[in-house]
Amino acid sequence: MPFAPSATLSQRHAAIRQSMRDKAVDALIVISIPNISWLTNYVGSSAIVVLTAETLQFITDSRYVTAVSDMQQTAHACPGLQLTVVDGSYDVALAGVLTSGGFRRIGFEAAHLTVSRFNWLGKTLASSSAPELVALDGVIEVARCVKDAYEIGLLKTAGSMLAQVTLEVLRLPRRGMTERDLAFQIDSTIRNAGFEKPAFETIVASGPNSALPHARPTERTLDEGDLVVLDFGGVYASYCVDITRTVVVGSATQRAREVYTAVRTAHDRAVEATAPGASRFDIDAAARDFLTAAGMGAAFGHGTGHGLGVEVHEEPRISKRGPNVDTSREAVTPGMVFTIEPGAYFPGWGGVRIEDDVLVTESGVEVLTQATTELITV
Amino acid sequence: MPFAPSATLSQRHAAIRQSMRDKAVDALIVISIPNISWLTNYVGSSAIVVLTAETLQFITDSRYVTAVSDMQQTAHACPGLQLTVVDGSYDVALAGVLTSGGFRRIGFEAAHLTVSRFNWLGKTLASSSAPELVALDGVIEVARCVKDAYEIGLLKTAGSMLAQVTLEVLRLPRRGMTERDLAFQIDSTIRNAGFEKPAFETIVASGPNSALPHARPTERTLDEGDLVVLDFGGVYASYCVDITRTVVVGSATQRAREVYTAVRTAHDRAVEATAPGASRFDIDAAARDFLTAAGMGAAFGHGTGHGLGVEVHEEPRISKRGPNVDTSREAVTPGMVFTIEPGAYFPGWGGVRIEDDVLVTESGVEVLTQATTELITV
Repeated sequence: MPFAPSATLSQRHAAIRQSMRDKAVDALIVISIPNISWLTNYVGSSAIVVLTAETLQFITDSRYVTAVSDMQQTAHACPGLQLTVVDGSYDVALAGVLTSGGFRRIGFEAAHLTVSRFNWLGKTLASSSAPELVALDGVIEVARCVKDAYEIGLLKTAGSMLAQVTLEVLRLPRRGMTERDLAFQIDSTIRNAGFEKPAFETIVASGPNSALPHARPTERTLDEGDLVVLDFGGVYASYCVDITRTVVVGSATQRAREVYTAVRTAHDRAVEATAPGASRFDIDAAARDFLTAAGMGAAFGHGTGHGLGVEVHEEPRISKRGPNVDTSREAVTPGMVFTIEPGAYFPGWGGVRIEDDVLVTESGVEVLTQATTELITV
Repeated sequence: MPFAPSATLSQRHAAIRQSMRDKAVDALIVISIPNISWLTNYVGSSAIVVLTAETLQFITDSRYVTAVSDMQQTAHACPGLQLTVVDGSYDVALAGVLTSGGFRRIGFEAAHLTVSRFNWLGKTLASSSAPELVALDGVIEVARCVKDAYEIGLLKTAGSMLAQVTLEVLRLPRRGMTERDLAFQIDSTIRNAGFEKPAFETIVASGPNSALPHARPTERTLDEGDLVVLDFGGVYASYCVDITRTVVVGSATQRAREVYTAVRTAHDRAVEATAPGASRFDIDAAARDFLTAAGMGAAFGHGTGHGLGVEVHEEPRISKRGPNVDTSREAVTPGMVFTIEPGAYFPGWGGVRIEDDVLVTESGVEVLTQATTELITV
């Protein structure tokens, strides 16, 4: 499996250390596992990182020591990594690292650290030289938002692989097949194409189920006239890509064609609205306004898209501007990768969603998942 | 898919309401999704619950409204459920429910609520009638620890299904097969047996990789003399079961037999030590002391087991007594379900792990995953 080269990790560390200087903290506690993976190439499930001006303190337990040590002998080694092995409690190990560092202001990921752990840490550190704990939000997530050259290369590869998978998937549905069987065949296709695993639980939603944007596959069999939403993705070298196509079984009704065409146009409008400097709310509005004009605004209840990277849902959120919506970092910039996935859902009748992954480039936008968006009849 | 009957949900709510009275809170914010599933039969991925003395306020977004409303028309309806649909921000919706309730003391899950959300909520509520926010730990997790009759029935069924899968899985390994291919075939076997999905990423760790307790399957091919650790599980009706067997390719060396026999005896000792009222540290010690006496104490770096339920890792933890270990709730009691999974790992050489799922009964212990623990040669 490919990993980021050490030089790429160094650049990421440098970017985060710049943010640390901006916030005047001399250490940053990182507990989000996707953030730790991005900083270190780690692929396990239990670790804490403390990033300082010079080192990266890596805290994990005995299960992962060999894997971490082996990686350090390769061209993907994490620069500055110093290993602490947990004996019993991660929090005790973390407190030990923090106490021995002589820090004055320690940043932490307020969006990930729980109140329990924060209270315990505050109490435990209070008895020592008492550094100040500083709540920070999204320091690493904001950096991850703009992909580096290594990540763009991977995501382009993963996007074409997923487009290829899609062409195979569009040949799979048959009348009488259950949603679960079809989902299972899609998962096999994803793995056979060279993905590590599906990026999330594959959605196959047929007939009335297609009106549920997050349906789980059931024992329902595909039947004449059904709309079938197929939403699936793959993880390649730890990076996630995601696509949705909607097909029709047998012949499409007039209404099904109308809804399909409206969603497809909304999708195209949002892709066209994507460019360096564009507002993420305006990209959403490009799709939403078209559906609203077509009388389907109320049928589109979710956001237009989400970022992709080491997580399948990350920043930026391509969503509706609204009173309760975080309006920070509104402009999209070159290197951002996200989905465009408008839909229209009518309870009891069915629904349509069409999703692609796009990369914002210096000059505009590139669709990474180039598979047909024509209405396919199966 | 089976769901808990409404009467079972009522009993769960009653147990939590008793804890709420004990803590003198008039509302409890629940944000852990497994805890929400256990309280309501919800199977989605985004929701917040506010449990009060009379109602269960259920906050979710438009994607899940139809699924939740449909469930309310069945025998699995969640008692007292009142639905709030999110428009933009879950936290704003939560603050609305809390403000309109007129509560004085509101408990929250301190082990799940992040510092960011806590700070935001504190600030937002301060401008209204200012209820007190009370950090609570493990209220629902402690209740979930002891399974009810509905859950025990499901876990027994799932355990026998997994034992059956294991017999099939033990016939799959072949010399020259890659770890990834074998893992893929195991996943297919799990799904074909009627599980919804694997309970976690299946582990196939061969030869030197078997010394890594949490190895991910690689392109390495199975070779003569390899020990191969097979660790896999399934989700059935939202409940998780988990098993590990270790096989040998071709003929086992004398050393491999010694290690295997020691781990198997350690496993049996821990199962025998399991009984109502037994200390979870003593169950661990039964396995650990045997391996230590056999000179393999240092090769067993992880705990002996973990609880199973709507999560694949939950309370109780069957682990080593130690200075940094939480010693609360030491005794295991009837209705608890957990794994027994000692192992011995020798970097560069290989490792062995044997895992079963057990139920503590009124009179002793029942092994739910009854598949052979003989050393199988493939």
